[in-house]
Amino acid sequence: VSATTSGLADTYRAYIDCLNRQDWQNLGQFVADDARHNGRAFGLAGYRAMLEQDFRTIPDLRFTIGLLAADPPLIAARLDFDCTPAGEFLGLPVNGRRVRFSENVFYRFEDAKISEVWSLLDRDAVEAQV
Amino acid sequence: VSATTSGLADTYRAYIDCLNRQDWQNLGQFVADDARHNGRAFGLAGYRAMLEQDFRTIPDLRFTIGLLAADPPLIAARLDFDCTPAGEFLGLPVNGRRVRFSENVFYRFEDAKISEVWSLLDRDAVEAQV
Repeated sequence: VSATTSGLADTYRAYIDCLNRQDWQNLGQFVADDARHNGRAFGLAGYRAMLEQDFRTIPDLRFTIGLLAADPPLIAARLDFDCTPAGEFLGLPVNGRRVRFSENVFYRFEDAKISEVWSLLDRDAVEAQV
Repeated sequence: VSATTSGLADTYRAYIDCLNRQDWQNLGQFVADDARHNGRAFGLAGYRAMLEQDFRTIPDLRFTIGLLAADPPLIAARLDFDCTPAGEFLGLPVNGRRVRFSENVFYRFEDAKISEVWSLLDRDAVEAQV
């Protein structure tokens, strides 16, 4: 494992900690100003707005890294969630039920910041639990 | 990049070539006898049956690596598909329409063979195209 590989993994873990602290002031340390998410030109402001909305929908949201593959400039992570979304989530009437599901997500880093994200959520798992 | 990292990426590319050739005789070079897929104890025979069924449902199925992160013993890939599934696919009435979608998938290797797979397909993308 090269220093670069472990360095990028460490940066990614610090990003996940930033999300779990809802430390939006420091999100710009990890996310590029012109970041793209699932093909959308979100930028840092849109990225932050998406995350803030996620925490409004899911007050007990917590990001847990299940699998992590670091291969600079890419990080791939399988994130595991165990939470109780209020109301509708992914178009499903979850209404405060506990759901466990995963996300398989790729990130491309540029200058040590996330520049592009390709994320897929396991909606089928959520659907099977509501 | 260590020799091990590039070695695993090469093994993975050879596995994808095996799938695209529908070379089921040699699938056991890449997939362990007791392989698990999305939590199911498929084994090599079940894994092969799943792939054979995929090619029956999608006669022009072709696996294309869009993103690849190799971090032994893990491989993460974003696979891109551009194909025309016959009939129903992912519970959607595709009926021979052309659909483009991706899969975000993790593999854990043991002894140079795939021992476990965690796959998510972009069903939303398919739904938006039918």
